[in-house]
Amino acid sequence: MARKSAYNFPVIREAIGHADALYGFKSGFDRESLALGLKSGGFWPGNIDKGLTNHQSTVFLFDADSGRCRAAVGGNLLTALRTAAASAVSIKYLARPDARVLGMIGAGHQSTFQLKAALDQRPFEKVIGWNIEPAALERLASVAKERGLPFESVDLDQLGRQADVIITITSSFEPILKAAQVRPGTHLACMGTDTKGKQEVEAELVAAATVFTDEIAQSITIGEAQHAVGRGLLSADGIVEIGAVINRTDPGRRSDDEITLFDGTGVGLQDLAVASAVVDLAVARGIAIDVDL
Amino acid sequence: MARKSAYNFPVIREAIGHADALYGFKSGFDRESLALGLKSGGFWPGNIDKGLTNHQSTVFLFDADSGRCRAAVGGNLLTALRTAAASAVSIKYLARPDARVLGMIGAGHQSTFQLKAALDQRPFEKVIGWNIEPAALERLASVAKERGLPFESVDLDQLGRQADVIITITSSFEPILKAAQVRPGTHLACMGTDTKGKQEVEAELVAAATVFTDEIAQSITIGEAQHAVGRGLLSADGIVEIGAVINRTDPGRRSDDEITLFDGTGVGLQDLAVASAVVDLAVARGIAIDVDL
Repeated sequence: MARKSAYNFPVIREAIGHADALYGFKSGFDRESLALGLKSGGFWPGNIDKGLTNHQSTVFLFDADSGRCRAAVGGNLLTALRTAAASAVSIKYLARPDARVLGMIGAGHQSTFQLKAALDQRPFEKVIGWNIEPAALERLASVAKERGLPFESVDLDQLGRQADVIITITSSFEPILKAAQVRPGTHLACMGTDTKGKQEVEAELVAAATVFTDEIAQSITIGEAQHAVGRGLLSADGIVEIGAVINRTDPGRRSDDEITLFDGTGVGLQDLAVASAVVDLAVARGIAIDVDL
Repeated sequence: MARKSAYNFPVIREAIGHADALYGFKSGFDRESLALGLKSGGFWPGNIDKGLTNHQSTVFLFDADSGRCRAAVGGNLLTALRTAAASAVSIKYLARPDARVLGMIGAGHQSTFQLKAALDQRPFEKVIGWNIEPAALERLASVAKERGLPFESVDLDQLGRQADVIITITSSFEPILKAAQVRPGTHLACMGTDTKGKQEVEAELVAAATVFTDEIAQSITIGEAQHAVGRGLLSADGIVEIGAVINRTDPGRRSDDEITLFDGTGVGLQDLAVASAVVDLAVARGIAIDVDL
């Protein structure tokens, strides 16, 4: 994306007026890998009562040389993995090398994926967490335990004071973490905000940080940066594509004292990349199912 | 659609910068039948050299109650059938009952589908046709012969003078048929124009007709009506949804002398309706292939 050899198509997202569902597509094309296609699905709030995940998606890959459908891949697990990978990549490239305490805000289903992927990026020595319902923190505690790490339930002041890296993964519509609670040098990965109106951290915190994102257009409209931009505290051209850091055309973290913030909004190209890798693996292992359409 | 219980989502159509391909999606939701999903694919001009159809598409249906993928259906044949069905429906509802001569403009792959579906709508006694390359008219002649009907290759003056119903199915970017060539009482189904810039008939002919369409928003931007609207000869509120005629909230043809023109642009809901019917049939006959995603 940062090299302009891959791009996302416009996102379709519709409240369909049935089952309170949101349905739509994220799609794109990568001219280098030739990944072409879309993820389709959405949010069905009543699914949980039927024993199904509320977020449902399927990825469809197309052959860029012929336009024929190449593969359909279940998207639920892949979405969880690619969202976790995104915050992990931001930690890899933006967190201080000496980061040792990982702070988690949010302890829902997705939080364990974020935590697992993050733990591989630095030699973390401790995990601390906050959740609106503290009982759910047991999820995070048990992942930390698997990895042989201590886990502590903390309040937000303690979390900001201790954590070197903070991941927010909630569906909040109010700022949870305040600017005054975060120390210089912290890296934040804000992964929960993917809709107009959602917000996980104070706009002043976004404004005080160097902001990185997957896609600037989404960051300023449906991402965590929407509020800082809307209030004039941040401008779109002050936001850096994480790809530019990966490609070394942007230095990333400028200093040990800087707060870096990754606004992970989620783009179709991530889904296509992950699904392509899975299809290649499935074909190589002989477990892909051939269907003649 | 005309009852507002079904709608199409925004169309995505991208020149992907690879293989000269156009790729995208048509999608929608019908609250009555609960058909939800999309058709994805596009136009790959180099396919013909590989023995593949240039137009390639696949339809994906989703369960409106859970968001799970219900079916993937090859879309190439279905698109040909639904496009033929659309002009046939317009003939059923808008052509004069005494129509006996069917005129075809265009003799490509799709033209035989249009012809076959049209022949079921009136007791046609003769088929006449014009094509930029006359040799291709053999296609239409052989369909007419199968149905026991005479076929005649004609020039455009003759076509307009003799035909009671005219179907245009070309990929022209210049008007082929002129207003002066068409008699009062004729019904035209203009099926080829689906992109900005394409045009099959003179704007004055569109302006002289009562215009019906599948979706007004598409008709005035990418359909045959784009030129008449662009030149101020026709306004969007002068165009009638064909669904209103089918639902009897619009009278359709007003008089025997009126020229009626159906601007068939092609919408996602058609694809979903046809694919849903096909999936139901396949399931009923036990020939659907179950795949666990």
